Parts: sequence; C-alpha cells; structure tokens
Amino acid sequence: MLNNSCIEFINSLASKEPVPGGGGASALVGSIGVALGSMVGNLTTGKKKYQDVEEEIQNLLIKSEALTDRLNALVAKDAAAFEPLAKAYGLPSSTEEEKLEKDKVLQQALIQAAEVPLAIAECCLEGIKILDLYAQKGSRLVVSDAGVGVIFCKAALQGAKLNVLINLKLMKDEELKEKLQKKLDSILEEGIVLADKVYQYVEGQLCC
Amino acid sequence: MLNNSCIEFINSLASKEPVPGGGGASALVGSIGVALGSMVGNLTTGKKKYQDVEEEIQNLLIKSEALTDRLNALVAKDAAAFEPLAKAYGLPSSTEEEKLEKDKVLQQALIQAAEVPLAIAECCLEGIKILDLYAQKGSRLVVSDAGVGVIFCKAALQGAKLNVLINLKLMKDEELKEKLQKKLDSILEEGIVLADKVYQYVEGQLCC
Repeated sequence: MLNNSCIEFINSLASKEPVPGGGGASALVGSIGVALGSMVGNLTTGKKKYQDVEEEIQNLLIKSEALTDRLNALVAKDAAAFEPLAKAYGLPSSTEEEKLEKDKVLQQALIQAAEVPLAIAECCLEGIKILDLYAQKGSRLVVSDAGVGVIFCKAALQGAKLNVLINLKLMKDEELKEKLQKKLDSILEEGIVLADKVYQYVEGQLCC
Repeated sequence: MLNNSCIEFINSLASKEPVPGGGGASALVGSIGVALGSMVGNLTTGKKKYQDVEEEIQNLLIKSEALTDRLNALVAKDAAAFEPLAKAYGLPSSTEEEKLEKDKVLQQALIQAAEVPLAIAECCLEGIKILDLYAQKGSRLVVSDAGVGVIFCKAALQGAKLNVLINLKLMKDEELKEKLQKKLDSILEEGIVLADKVYQYVEGQLCC
C-alpha cells in the first residue's frame, strides 16, 4: 500500500473504497512523525558540537527507524483487519440461526479490528517518547522538526483512539472490552500529556 | 515529490537531506486529513438516507478535493522556499560588505520561507471547517474518519506554526513580523478551538 505514490495513497484515501481509512492513515501519520525524529538524529550524528550525545543519538536512530517500519506495516495490517469485518457485516441474518452465526463472526472480527489501532496507539506513544529525547538532545537547528514530529504522533494517537472506539462500541465481551478500553486510556493519558509538554518546549525554543 | 512512493517520501524525510522537512510534512498531513473528509463525502453521496444533504455534500466534495490539491502543491512550494534560505546561509560573511549583503539576501529568503507555512496553516484552517461539516452532515458509518481528518488538520496547523516561528525569529522587519505573527495567531486561535470541538463531537458519537 505504501509502495504506491503519495498522491495515489491520498486519492485512494479520498475515494469510497473502504481501505485505506482513518486507521491506516493514523499509522502513516505516526510514521511521518517518527521519521521527522530520525531526520533530527541524522542531522545531529557525527557533528562535533553534539559529540557528548553521539551514542545516545545512535541508539535513538536504531529505535526510531525500527518504529517507522512497525508503523508502516500497521498500515497494511489495518486494511487486513477490516476485510473480515466487512465480510461479517455482509453475512445474511434472516433466520435466528443466521443471526447467531453472523454475530459470532462479527464479534471475532471486531477484536482484530480493535487490536490493530490499539497497536498503532502503542507505537505512537513510543514515538512521542523518542521525539521527546530528540527534541532535548538533538541539533538545535532542527528542534522545530522534533516538535512537528511529536504533534503528528499525538494526532495519530488520537486518530487511532477513534478507530479503537468504533470497534469497542459493538463488542459484547464486556471483560475484554473493559480491558482494551483501560489499555487505550492509559496509553492516551501518558501520550497526550508528554506530547503537549514536548511541543510546548519546542515552541519555547523558537519564540523570541 | 509526492509522485514518489510513500515509503520513499518517509525515507527522504528521515534522511539528513534538508527537504522535505517539517513544513512539507505538515502540508502532507493536512492533505491526508482533508482526503479523509472527501472519503466521508464519497461514502455519503448518492445514498438515499442522506438525500437531504446531497447538494451540500457535492459542494463540500468540490471544496475538499480542491483543498487537497492546494496542500499537495504546498509540499513542493515549501521545499522550493527552503532553497534560497539555504543559499543565503551559505554566503560569505568575512567583510562588513559581505555581512550586509548576506543579511539582505537572508531577510528576503526568510519572508518566503515564512509565507509558505503560513499558507499551509490557512489551508488547514479551511480543512478543519470543511471537516466540521462532513462530521455533522456525512454518513454516520464513517463519522470517525471525519474525526481523524480534523485532528490531522489540527496537527498540520500546529506543525506549520512551528515552521512560521523559526523564520519569524530571525526576521528584522518588525512591522512585517508583527503582521505575520498576528495572522498566524488568528488562524491558530480559530482552528484549534474548532478542531477540538469537532473531535469531541465525533468522540461523543462513538462512545456508549
């Protein structure tokens, strides 16, 4: 999916095709945010002025590059998780037996469809933590890019949230639902507070 | 630039190449956000259930598709505006005369480099307004996508802001600086309040 040109991706997003949708787009925006972190790393490493943080930056680069790969893979995973869900919605429901079968298949598909955006949210939280370090330790010349990256990861996290919520809404397994909701809440609470802190720090570096 | 694959775009963002950077990435994320609005429109138009808003949706589609094109063009414009800035930084400054000349060229380049992200910010505000209408009027089945779209446009607006600020920081024409800062502040004030309102509305539609 990401092997298509950006223009093609945007066009298929805008079309009435069911995928890619908001979930896959969230993974992509998270990936763009984390890539801006890697840019900060690549413009810091090898510079004499930043030799004290050279090792730390090298380690961050390994983490941010791997995270970009994970987020890129989640674009396709989100589309794949939608397929069984769309199939389940299309099942017949005329008889009681068909209704029961449809509900069973649907409930199973909802789990996967909720777990993928939850995994996207987890990656975005990790991205926010990495961008925090890039903003603090990376080259001052590109601190704004760390700030842009962190605000993209925050938005991708909030986008992933909505995609978890739509799938939780129809979930009947109350125990699992509560477990996933709690996990989502804790990721969001941590991620949003930290992202806002990093963005404000970067803004402070640019003003006056 | 957007004719490259998404993977290539992400890789060149992550690299130490000066462009694309946070400004171009903001235009792209805004474009992704607006495209999610078009998706809502394309999944609403022609549906019997939504025939009362058919004309409005058709009009919104014209607007959101044109806005995506404008944001896509701004990705390249941001890269083009960076070029004279990079050249200006590279000018010699050994003599007083050279210093004066460098500063003159730099000040001119800063104006363009600030105006492009300001144009991106304006487009994002327009995107937020369009997504507000898609969230209210579009198919309920894809209301989450309007919510994801609006939060992306908000993040792109905040990303563009940082790219205006870095260029304003070095600007010496206080009158112009104040004018651009005021314009930026007014776009942000309106955009962020509205984006948060739309996102909360969508979240409310998905909960319970």
